[in-house]
Amino acid sequence: MENPHVIVLFGATGDLSRRKLLPGMLRLWEAGLLDDSRIVGTSLEDIDTETFVKIARTSCDEFGHRPVSEERWAPFSEMLRYVPQSAGPEALAAAVREAEQEVSEPGREVNFLHYLSVPPKAALDVVRQLDEAQLVERSRIIMEKPFGTDLKSARKLNARLHQVFDESQIFRIDHFLGKEAAQNILAFRFANGLFEPIWNRNFIDHVQIDVPETLGLEDRTKFYETTGAYRDMVVTHLMQVLAFMAMEPPTSLAPGPISDEKNKVFRSMRPLEPHNVVRGQYSGYRQHHDTADDSDTETFVALKVEIDNWRWAGVPFFLRTGKKLAEGARIISIAFKEPPLTMFPAGSNAGTQGPDHLTFDLADQSKMSLSFYGKRPGPGMKLEKLSMQFATHDTASSGAVLEAYERLIHDAIRGDHTLFTTAEGIETLWEKSTPLIENPSPVRAYSPGSWGPNAIHQLIAPHAWRLPFERSWRDPNATGV
Amino acid sequence: MENPHVIVLFGATGDLSRRKLLPGMLRLWEAGLLDDSRIVGTSLEDIDTETFVKIARTSCDEFGHRPVSEERWAPFSEMLRYVPQSAGPEALAAAVREAEQEVSEPGREVNFLHYLSVPPKAALDVVRQLDEAQLVERSRIIMEKPFGTDLKSARKLNARLHQVFDESQIFRIDHFLGKEAAQNILAFRFANGLFEPIWNRNFIDHVQIDVPETLGLEDRTKFYETTGAYRDMVVTHLMQVLAFMAMEPPTSLAPGPISDEKNKVFRSMRPLEPHNVVRGQYSGYRQHHDTADDSDTETFVALKVEIDNWRWAGVPFFLRTGKKLAEGARIISIAFKEPPLTMFPAGSNAGTQGPDHLTFDLADQSKMSLSFYGKRPGPGMKLEKLSMQFATHDTASSGAVLEAYERLIHDAIRGDHTLFTTAEGIETLWEKSTPLIENPSPVRAYSPGSWGPNAIHQLIAPHAWRLPFERSWRDPNATGV
Repeated sequence: MENPHVIVLFGATGDLSRRKLLPGMLRLWEAGLLDDSRIVGTSLEDIDTETFVKIARTSCDEFGHRPVSEERWAPFSEMLRYVPQSAGPEALAAAVREAEQEVSEPGREVNFLHYLSVPPKAALDVVRQLDEAQLVERSRIIMEKPFGTDLKSARKLNARLHQVFDESQIFRIDHFLGKEAAQNILAFRFANGLFEPIWNRNFIDHVQIDVPETLGLEDRTKFYETTGAYRDMVVTHLMQVLAFMAMEPPTSLAPGPISDEKNKVFRSMRPLEPHNVVRGQYSGYRQHHDTADDSDTETFVALKVEIDNWRWAGVPFFLRTGKKLAEGARIISIAFKEPPLTMFPAGSNAGTQGPDHLTFDLADQSKMSLSFYGKRPGPGMKLEKLSMQFATHDTASSGAVLEAYERLIHDAIRGDHTLFTTAEGIETLWEKSTPLIENPSPVRAYSPGSWGPNAIHQLIAPHAWRLPFERSWRDPNATGV
Repeated sequence: MENPHVIVLFGATGDLSRRKLLPGMLRLWEAGLLDDSRIVGTSLEDIDTETFVKIARTSCDEFGHRPVSEERWAPFSEMLRYVPQSAGPEALAAAVREAEQEVSEPGREVNFLHYLSVPPKAALDVVRQLDEAQLVERSRIIMEKPFGTDLKSARKLNARLHQVFDESQIFRIDHFLGKEAAQNILAFRFANGLFEPIWNRNFIDHVQIDVPETLGLEDRTKFYETTGAYRDMVVTHLMQVLAFMAMEPPTSLAPGPISDEKNKVFRSMRPLEPHNVVRGQYSGYRQHHDTADDSDTETFVALKVEIDNWRWAGVPFFLRTGKKLAEGARIISIAFKEPPLTMFPAGSNAGTQGPDHLTFDLADQSKMSLSFYGKRPGPGMKLEKLSMQFATHDTASSGAVLEAYERLIHDAIRGDHTLFTTAEGIETLWEKSTPLIENPSPVRAYSPGSWGPNAIHQLIAPHAWRLPFERSWRDPNATGV
């Protein structure tokens, strides 16, 4: 049983709160994972608790798993409080202390969880405010990305954070790692005897981590102009997933050992040189509001990551993400080396349909697929690509799937750092990104609805990007585009 | 394009001919794989061609893939001839030569395929008859099991065969190897880079080859009393499948190299000592007609096969087959070793649901399944057994699946020995069987509808037989019984 909690939600009326955090907290509460808690919202909006409860209800109705009935809502809504930021730190502190009194029980300490759903530049103000309000002890703090914009800013951010909070109190959230499928990578790799023996440069040819998105940036350009796809997606999400794929077996599946192994992967990465990176910008981006006429911000990035250690030397990891692409997907795809195929008769098709692939789909309904050559039914020995598949909804317990934010809030409440990022990891990633950030290659234009600039094909040659995803999922032969 | 063929079918009105061979030939002909052919039937029955055609039609209607329409039947039936055995070898020879003339074309030799669907003791008579009728040149001969009953008889049979036919002309048929799934083992193992690295004693714990049958022996006891489950099923079918699973990669997927590797497996087998064998007899067997009151014939056999080579030393292969068992199935199941699991937190279920399994189902609709530990959806890191599955009917070309006999007849027509057994292989198997045959342990009674005598559990301990099959297929956690 966890201690009672007071969750302090900064940016409580913002987009993330409404879409994910408030509906997520309702779901956790319904699942019995958020008993004995209070949620104190605060933001720039001058509203009262009653209005906040209405906003929360509307949010849960619109973005929650199912419509909210009055019987479900009434007891949850009683956990909610609101203090406008304009009321000052003392008012917030008073509301938090009052909430603490309400859930306090003899023999059980009350813990605080500060969720900073605020823009980066506001985050340090909130940290200072928490310090002044003496809300640091028995507290944990959830930070949203970005964690800096380069090595220097990340170091500065971490240094200031550490003036107030110990690293053990800080939870840098990366919702990609909260997905069931991301954690399933760990289970899959380390709970089974089959795959670890081939999980290395002797048997794996290359790895692809692919997160194309179909949406554009219409109303988010102000934020995006100074961020771009690399900072927004790669340093945070894609590199974290890469580390799960590439890390050595940790001594235990505990936060410290896992962070150690992830950080070793980052330290083994070669610096990201511009010639291993394709930056793209969709045509029309510069016509959006708040973009410069000569904006060099990339809305697309593809890169080749090289990991110089005994396990991975010579095995490229190809990462790609971008806006306004042809399809949306979140796929990790491992291409295996081919065996000597000369034993097969001419015309057998051995090896002609590309390498075997193990594919993880990081969609909410997580899937895995293993493609392999099998015998085509019929006379003679003709081969064809077949595939074995698994999907989460096949299992009896899939009703218990937590959404990424739900899981991560729950983990932070439990003090479990496993799926969060350390200061050291973040700083190492920024360090490896320095060549790319200091000397970026110019962005190349691409058409909305395409798969990015043509240069991506040279980047991955002689291999091919595995697309379109849905086709490659259903049809193991699909490669190219 | 194959040469024109005259197929001489001995035992043309027998059970196997009616159930499998005649419907199979019709199907091959419809698939365009039996053009320019004649089929000359012969047997002890004194009938004429017209009657034989009627029997063939009835057989195809009853046992074929679909009802036979007149349009389909008419052209096929014109290929059929019949000569009763009582008419003597000259009459048979004359009919065969006449059929040869009919399909003969300038520049293409006519080949002969003699299918001996006759009891073992009649086979050598037929061979002698073929010799006398000068039907050996340009001929191939398909022999049905059993290929002897011990080392001495197998050597004698092969020696007499070789007096007339060259080994290259002899096709010892084992319909198990004609199944798509059996050949898929070769494709799966050798066309993919994933599995061969773990296909050895370092990663595989044990292998199970399991062919329980539900039928009893009501009207087959006369044959069975002198044969038993070991000779009827193990020496032929199960050991052949074992060799496909265990063999080293051949230099090419051609008959010679494959036979070489299979025979190396047989030579590396330890002699089958009685203490590694459980013989069983279902209660009631001795009440059948034609069985001795104190019959020692086994209707069930389970054994532990040890292969003393670099790949498999210490990895037991457990074989089982029997009559009147609880369920029918034809399953190969590979149990992988467990990785060090101590990295998982207590209560994670790591390893608690048995080892990972790769399972091949040799049913006509062949299936494969790979069970592994994955993360149970929901909070925390709980593991559960999941499985990825593949079934032939998932592929577009499954309509082209040939039944085992169809494929093997087609292979013999093409002169492809890949799926047939050599004299050397058979003799090595009988040699390894000598301790078991000369000094069999007594049969143990088992109840019809059970899974065999209780002693099978000691044989496989500390592992467990994976049963029931359908449950283990659907539910990867199922073990035991």
